Amino acid sequence: MKGLRAAIAHGGGPTAVLNASLAGVIDGCRGRMHALFGARFGVRGLVADDMVELLALPQATTGAVAHEPGSAIGSSRQELDEAGYARLLANLKARDVEVLFYTGGNGSMDTAREISGRARASGMALQVIGVPKTIDNDLLVTHHTPGYGSTGYFFACAARDVGVDNRSLPSPVCVLETLGRNAGWIAAATSLARANHDDAPHLIYLPERPVSLEQMAADVERVYRRLGRVVIAVCEGQRDENGQPFGAYVDRVGSPVHALAANLGHTLARLIAEKTGLRARAERPGLLGRSCGSLTRERDRSEAYECGQTAVRAALAGATDVMVALAGDSSTFLTPLDTVARAERTFPLEWIAPEGNDVTAAFREYAAPLIGEVPGYGVMF
Amino acid sequence: MKGLRAAIAHGGGPTAVLNASLAGVIDGCRGRMHALFGARFGVRGLVADDMVELLALPQATTGAVAHEPGSAIGSSRQELDEAGYARLLANLKARDVEVLFYTGGNGSMDTAREISGRARASGMALQVIGVPKTIDNDLLVTHHTPGYGSTGYFFACAARDVGVDNRSLPSPVCVLETLGRNAGWIAAATSLARANHDDAPHLIYLPERPVSLEQMAADVERVYRRLGRVVIAVCEGQRDENGQPFGAYVDRVGSPVHALAANLGHTLARLIAEKTGLRARAERPGLLGRSCGSLTRERDRSEAYECGQTAVRAALAGATDVMVALAGDSSTFLTPLDTVARAERTFPLEWIAPEGNDVTAAFREYAAPLIGEVPGYGVMF
Repeated sequence: MKGLRAAIAHGGGPTAVLNASLAGVIDGCRGRMHALFGARFGVRGLVADDMVELLALPQATTGAVAHEPGSAIGSSRQELDEAGYARLLANLKARDVEVLFYTGGNGSMDTAREISGRARASGMALQVIGVPKTIDNDLLVTHHTPGYGSTGYFFACAARDVGVDNRSLPSPVCVLETLGRNAGWIAAATSLARANHDDAPHLIYLPERPVSLEQMAADVERVYRRLGRVVIAVCEGQRDENGQPFGAYVDRVGSPVHALAANLGHTLARLIAEKTGLRARAERPGLLGRSCGSLTRERDRSEAYECGQTAVRAALAGATDVMVALAGDSSTFLTPLDTVARAERTFPLEWIAPEGNDVTAAFREYAAPLIGEVPGYGVMF
Repeated sequence: MKGLRAAIAHGGGPTAVLNASLAGVIDGCRGRMHALFGARFGVRGLVADDMVELLALPQATTGAVAHEPGSAIGSSRQELDEAGYARLLANLKARDVEVLFYTGGNGSMDTAREISGRARASGMALQVIGVPKTIDNDLLVTHHTPGYGSTGYFFACAARDVGVDNRSLPSPVCVLETLGRNAGWIAAATSLARANHDDAPHLIYLPERPVSLEQMAADVERVYRRLGRVVIAVCEGQRDENGQPFGAYVDRVGSPVHALAANLGHTLARLIAEKTGLRARAERPGLLGRSCGSLTRERDRSEAYECGQTAVRAALAGATDVMVALAGDSSTFLTPLDTVARAERTFPLEWIAPEGNDVTAAFREYAAPLIGEVPGYGVMF
């Protein structure tokens, strides 16, 4: 048995398969590491030395947790200041930790890089290995991210279900607000909901291509004239042609902009209704999209687990300052933290249809294997 | 073969199993009725004589549609005026329709009763048979309603998933807004999410028991002190101690009250945050709760189908002015429209815990067979 002592911390929001990555790391460390400390609530636990010994857990426990959404050890969005970094390193040193696994997205990979740099500068031998995790699919280098497939499937199902509901009542316009922050990957995934011609979503907007309310209203009216109903998929970070969240310029007086942005779907529905005269509503499934345990994809889960296992193998091989990445065939490889930290992989402009209101077949070819088939509904009339 | 010619219309929002009832009626009529006309978009189709012949559909088509949410022939919330009733009856007479199946909740049963009364007054021989349908579970006489089991399961899963997400981040308070209008049945169903002690939801409020913001904030603070996190389940129609939707008295100036009520969860989260100083967010899965095709319950679906079949048997036996009702063992019986029309079955006060922030074991015993087991999550720490 090698004598390494390790710790693991999560950064950012949980996903449906974050616990699978955790289980992959735990199982990878069993019999190969002396210790694996889990930081409670991410950097918060690292700074406060609030850690739990994970190798003591029975395999049955980690096996069960691997199938559950959320984060069993907790995560956080806390930012570190210099004092925080210093305490964190002192705590790891006191526990003789030589390997830190850090699970998260591009912000977390930046934190991981910062921790590693500071450890090195202080003469501390600490290997730092990143484990990818984000529903947003916005990490560079990796073909896709653990968490995206399940969330993409959730929102594709949501678009299908909102579509069939929309078809059932003479209530013509529905805006489906997806997760995805500033990247269009999740909104784009709703395109996989279409089993039959004219299935929802009829319009998909992506934050990489800002769109004016006028253009959107014209699109809605055109679809409405043809079908009598319109489902629009748009992510929470969609911006108008001025780079503003929709409605901000209307309601800004007295209201914080972030509150409006947090309710983009409803604001957009109101604006579209005002502009077109059509009744419009919004649906916002919200964080169920990242935590819905009923719709987790098996490929996503097994890839997440494998990323955890690969991280341990990398640590045992002496690697540091790398993140585990996924290839299109689910195999894993390592990439320097420098290549992924902080940078955001936005949705490729060439996968946006020329009209700016849909995605191309090339995107669907990319995404279909990750998200899997969305069972379609028949159409009686 | 009897010579009856029938029509069917839906009223109100769709459910996950409304199409199963439709399929039950269609299959019941096959070989026994001369015709079955489906009204497109409920009374709208009856008034406009926009009808489709349903017996011409292949059994495979109706069999597939029976497993899909939404309404294959469409529904509507339109109210009828006298001219509408007159046109509707003239249209049915012109088609020689002798049986009208009307699917819906207590409002629709009232419409069905009105149609029957007017037909009788005009000397027209028209049997009117109600088929129960509402996610809200607020029909009298029937033990439960088709649609409730699936929606209850959806929101119980949502409470479980919101709970695990809430446990994963140091973001303490989450308000889960459920469907359910003015009845607490759906909010109450979230109690079935609890697999382990301290699982979400920690507080459940019911519109049958108005609650002050002060009381709610005190409840939140008490749970927070014990667990460090709080998930609150509340239905869209919850009222405060003055019978007002929360926040209406704060923001009423310049804002229509219904807009605030439509966003009750978010308003409540803001008010709780202001009152307690704790960060609070809201989740509102919205109409996915009635249209999520991935979480439909098989018992709910088969009961809905059976209600359709029973309605046809009742028609063939010469019944009129009755609604099909369900007993607790899934068997069906008939009840006069007068016993269910317009009246709302609110949540029994004796099933609300004395503190007003939870339901009793008696409710869970009632609901568990309808909703089924909600797979629980383990707790590592």
